[in-house]
Amino acid sequence: MEKFQVHILGCGSALPTMRHHPTSQVVNLREKLFMIDCGEGTQLQLRRQHLKFSRLDHIFISHLHGDHVLGLLPLISTLSLMGRTTPLHIYAHAALEGLMRPQLSFYCAGLNFDVVFHALPTFTAMTPELVFSDRSVDVYAVPLRHRLPACGFIFRERPRLPHIRRDMIDFLQIPHYEITNIKQGAGWTTEDGDYYPHERLTYPAERGRCYAYCSDTEFLPQLPGVLSGVTVLFHEATFGQQHAARAAETHHSTAAQAATVAARAGVERLIIGHYSSRYDDERPLLDEARAVFPHTQLATEGMVVEV
Amino acid sequence: MEKFQVHILGCGSALPTMRHHPTSQVVNLREKLFMIDCGEGTQLQLRRQHLKFSRLDHIFISHLHGDHVLGLLPLISTLSLMGRTTPLHIYAHAALEGLMRPQLSFYCAGLNFDVVFHALPTFTAMTPELVFSDRSVDVYAVPLRHRLPACGFIFRERPRLPHIRRDMIDFLQIPHYEITNIKQGAGWTTEDGDYYPHERLTYPAERGRCYAYCSDTEFLPQLPGVLSGVTVLFHEATFGQQHAARAAETHHSTAAQAATVAARAGVERLIIGHYSSRYDDERPLLDEARAVFPHTQLATEGMVVEV
Repeated sequence: MEKFQVHILGCGSALPTMRHHPTSQVVNLREKLFMIDCGEGTQLQLRRQHLKFSRLDHIFISHLHGDHVLGLLPLISTLSLMGRTTPLHIYAHAALEGLMRPQLSFYCAGLNFDVVFHALPTFTAMTPELVFSDRSVDVYAVPLRHRLPACGFIFRERPRLPHIRRDMIDFLQIPHYEITNIKQGAGWTTEDGDYYPHERLTYPAERGRCYAYCSDTEFLPQLPGVLSGVTVLFHEATFGQQHAARAAETHHSTAAQAATVAARAGVERLIIGHYSSRYDDERPLLDEARAVFPHTQLATEGMVVEV
Repeated sequence: MEKFQVHILGCGSALPTMRHHPTSQVVNLREKLFMIDCGEGTQLQLRRQHLKFSRLDHIFISHLHGDHVLGLLPLISTLSLMGRTTPLHIYAHAALEGLMRPQLSFYCAGLNFDVVFHALPTFTAMTPELVFSDRSVDVYAVPLRHRLPACGFIFRERPRLPHIRRDMIDFLQIPHYEITNIKQGAGWTTEDGDYYPHERLTYPAERGRCYAYCSDTEFLPQLPGVLSGVTVLFHEATFGQQHAARAAETHHSTAAQAATVAARAGVERLIIGHYSSRYDDERPLLDEARAVFPHTQLATEGMVVEV
């Protein structure tokens, strides 16, 4: 299986503690790195996890709260000092560009690469929108509901080519240089004129894997409807049940609510995080979530999730 | 002796590494905290060293390079979340306010305390200027020379009251409520009309201690002239002798240059820091400095310097 991993760089919330860094994650898909959110200190966490800065071209920002954004400028400054020349793409609420341009001009004067801001859509309906695509992945933004406009992200592995049926290739003596064509959909006609369609020469590929990141958000009953086919879901669980009122007030979710989304969406696994700094121990959050959805894990800094 | 300590929160340079954080220090003078510079991640270093956020009212910024500034906004955001209501004073180049106000409005909306920016002087001569004063300390800015306007800071303990001569007080049966007056300069007349001047009733206080912070700067031959009476000097030593050309090019100092400033200024002790990320081991920098000025130490994160 080709690599599809999620590195948890930070899974705390607004108030950083000695236990948790502010939010950031890196999706490693076949050695291309995609960052989600970038709180203060993210560049150090990248280093700690031995992730190559040069492999990072795309950063997705869920919403413009400081604990999801304020590591960007220092990260860009470091990329500049490291001699980067290739563009860096940032997908965020349209307001970010206006906030960052004066800072970039001042603190990163003479930047040798472009910082390209892509405005995330403003949603009117609960419909994911494609915001990035390359040959291995489609990234969708999904609307969340928080104190200011917020998006989740779905990383959907693109359909892969089918596997070749070695026995048929050998039996029909199909030359090696034809294999790529066949994987891409071609059939084969023998010298005798017998036609073998693509489907007889290949096995279908495994179903594409899919990672969804949903933070920060209040409990959103419509969310499971757009998470179909998700393998691993990260959903914020800032609070436990005893602080459900505070969760509602601040437009965050409880662990049980995160698990309800996972259960209704039918995902394979749930990772919870974005813990309130009031908790010294998140195991009660885990217990709450597992009571609703057993395949739940707690995010921790340094964790690598295989999707 | 009353407390006068310097906490090294970060002593690396522009490129953060696993070994060194970007620049920040805290001067603890009688439990009032004064921060000097505030690179990314400073708030976490504050926590690591168990320094109380509530004791911090004054932040001095030497110059507006990101590695000295970019921890400010996340720190202010945290102070806000912690419920701060007292003003925070920032002493920095005049440009900082214009850069930070839009960020503060956006990321720290509804701040319950004032952030008061004080513009540091623009120097025309090598003369320290008083930028802050309270009953225990005078803080002076001194001009440095870097790629953009830069200041060092001198923290000079204010003259303290003399010690009372207990034997004289007892002998003359001076009532206790008079002691404060005597410490502040009064003499005493006995019932018989004999006058004892202040000087016979007290011992002089120890000489006030003094801490100077000089970073970032090229070697500045005029600097020792304004550092007279400094007890402990922190001077940047970004490079070693083998990179002296690079030091000159980037307007930084070598370890030997830092030591030369210390020797010529006649300070008691020198701390060097702001190490280039190219060094895995700073002991050669220490050796270089000690060859010129033996009372040199290497700054390290977590170090507490007694002034």
